[in-house]
Amino acid sequence: MKLIADNLRITRPEIRHALQQLDPEPVQALVKACEARGTWAIDVNTGPLGKFADIGMTFFMEAVQAVTDLPLLIDTANPDAMTAGVKAARNRIIINGFSLEPRKLEKILPLARKYDADIVGFLLYPDSRVPTDAAQRFEIALELMEKAEAAGVAKEQVIIDPVIPPLAWENGIVQARQVLEVIRTLPDLLGFPVKTIGGISNLGTNAPDKARRLAVEQSYVAMLAAAGLHFALLDILDSDLVQAAQVSGILAKEDIFSWGMVP
Amino acid sequence: MKLIADNLRITRPEIRHALQQLDPEPVQALVKACEARGTWAIDVNTGPLGKFADIGMTFFMEAVQAVTDLPLLIDTANPDAMTAGVKAARNRIIINGFSLEPRKLEKILPLARKYDADIVGFLLYPDSRVPTDAAQRFEIALELMEKAEAAGVAKEQVIIDPVIPPLAWENGIVQARQVLEVIRTLPDLLGFPVKTIGGISNLGTNAPDKARRLAVEQSYVAMLAAAGLHFALLDILDSDLVQAAQVSGILAKEDIFSWGMVP
Repeated sequence: MKLIADNLRITRPEIRHALQQLDPEPVQALVKACEARGTWAIDVNTGPLGKFADIGMTFFMEAVQAVTDLPLLIDTANPDAMTAGVKAARNRIIINGFSLEPRKLEKILPLARKYDADIVGFLLYPDSRVPTDAAQRFEIALELMEKAEAAGVAKEQVIIDPVIPPLAWENGIVQARQVLEVIRTLPDLLGFPVKTIGGISNLGTNAPDKARRLAVEQSYVAMLAAAGLHFALLDILDSDLVQAAQVSGILAKEDIFSWGMVP
Repeated sequence: MKLIADNLRITRPEIRHALQQLDPEPVQALVKACEARGTWAIDVNTGPLGKFADIGMTFFMEAVQAVTDLPLLIDTANPDAMTAGVKAARNRIIINGFSLEPRKLEKILPLARKYDADIVGFLLYPDSRVPTDAAQRFEIALELMEKAEAAGVAKEQVIIDPVIPPLAWENGIVQARQVLEVIRTLPDLLGFPVKTIGGISNLGTNAPDKARRLAVEQSYVAMLAAAGLHFALLDILDSDLVQAAQVSGILAKEDIFSWGMVP
């Protein structure tokens, strides 16, 4: 299980401020901190960026790539920003991402072919609603793969995101288990070892304190690893959660164990 | 997932000493501490007890039952000690346990029928070797169920212990994953919701420090819960591990979640 930092996001005040000032320093300090913690890649979550799609995304990509060679996930729902991102890319990139939403099928999915990049496909309805049972998730996964194929994107380029729900949602805990089931069975259903990605931070939305949030994240990340998740998107600066994810990744995958492997 | 204290064991010097002195106090203090932590049951691990099978087991059962009404697992490989234990039982008991070893089939398994008690069945070869792949474990499980049925013990009385290996064993990490697979698929294979039990403490044998031991136990207990384990045998006084087990049990089973449920 590879760990991807979700720390670089426009919702953080210092990142929003850096964008407003076009000041790369806070962005670069964060990226360096994430790389120091051993992240495999960095999710560059710029948000939609509105009419500053081009200048905003270019600012982020330049700032980040000046200090790291790590793979980057370009994380925006705005096709214009995404286009600016893939154009500005020098590092390996993953487009994050597309769904059955028509605008994304038309404007974002084709970028994966044009720029030969992997692309995250979200298990969401065309109107971005979250499906409520595992069967619906499987149907959407099949549809996403069909759409990718029709756009000339190889199925191996698609990384499925089954959309981890907040536990506090009505039915959230049941959906969280369905997500595990989807991750476990999707490779059989699709007939190839499809890669999967999950965002851990959603799970603990509205937790009353850090300790309880960490407790559910630690347990669930182990369950995700055992289910076969390939990419865990998480707060790479949370050392307790990262240790749990790393240990779980070892238990889920390695064929030889020694205590020296445990971080 | 119900938690069972594995704390009361003859390998602890103070418990061995209590037996030698026939002094119930240290045993009772430990039992009370376990009950205070919310254990569902107590594993009374007396070891074989040799020629003191009768007096030794009776001492333990009397001492424990004087201070708790919790279910007790009578944990000995010695049929004479086991017989003394079931005779001395007033609390609900679980016989822990039998295997394909002829002596246990002949002398321990029949006690489950005679005393109408649940009984743990270990997935071990007749000579007590640990099987090395999942297919062997399934075959042994089928054989255990046949032997139980032949002895007049209902299949629902048998609780399967797939025998969690030390990770540090050669191949231990692969076997640990096979154990998860067995727990997940055994109900389908046997055609009824067979109950399973696993001892967590084995996993971290020879850990170089407590922190790394806890890290692997926390991850693995979450994987066990997600696989559907019914009974986790663990150090109930290890509050970090117990929290991980409780949270994992919630995530694995509950249909409604609120943050107030998280310990």
